[in-house]
Amino acid sequence: MSKKKGTKAERELFHMFWDTGNWAVVRAAGSGSTPLPAPDLIVGNGKKVYAIECKSLKKDNSKYFKENEIELLGEFSKIFGAEPLVAARFNNKGWFFIKTKDLGVSKKKTYFVNLKIAQEKGLNFENIIKL
Amino acid sequence: MSKKKGTKAERELFHMFWDTGNWAVVRAAGSGSTPLPAPDLIVGNGKKVYAIECKSLKKDNSKYFKENEIELLGEFSKIFGAEPLVAARFNNKGWFFIKTKDLGVSKKKTYFVNLKIAQEKGLNFENIIKL
Repeated sequence: MSKKKGTKAERELFHMFWDTGNWAVVRAAGSGSTPLPAPDLIVGNGKKVYAIECKSLKKDNSKYFKENEIELLGEFSKIFGAEPLVAARFNNKGWFFIKTKDLGVSKKKTYFVNLKIAQEKGLNFENIIKL
Repeated sequence: MSKKKGTKAERELFHMFWDTGNWAVVRAAGSGSTPLPAPDLIVGNGKKVYAIECKSLKKDNSKYFKENEIELLGEFSKIFGAEPLVAARFNNKGWFFIKTKDLGVSKKKTYFVNLKIAQEKGLNFENIIKL
């Protein structure tokens, strides 16, 4: 996935949350300049806060996370007081929201997500915004 | 205040919160591309969330906020479930944290902050991180 495509998906989700009228959203500034953990988006509705990593995938791909990406998301979420989520957008299938404990783990201990995992374990946007 | 100086102050505060070990911080991506409200920083410790606008001032200045800046911070905070704060950094005096209700309001209904307000109404960093 290109960086550009990931950013486009992230912006789409940013607006989806704002458009509900009940959720406020912050897009995190590029975390490249610092080793500190940062989710792509942080969203809150006065009751819940989600720290979200966004991924855009083709339908048949598995997306592997960078080393420590999921651990850092978990660390951030624990300190902040947020629930960590992966938001995966599939071409022609839309968005799925997967709890980090439900991600796949490869033999090399790398986390990944694919359409099968998303469909079996994920929640859709309507579920997420009602939680 | 230059944009560059504001960003430098914002980065300083970003690291101050992380360095406590108890607070996680997100710097918001430039909100210039969207009319939606975005604080400079959002910080949480599992109990409290602050949405923060950062300002860097010379000792004798008053800093006036842009039209709607404080209203948008309040709107964001209400939806997200955060407490809105202005963090003002004065040369040689350090940081003060001022609740938006304690800001000055000019005859033209513009919000402002200066050293007098900060010293009379503001909290220091040690107060804030213990709340």
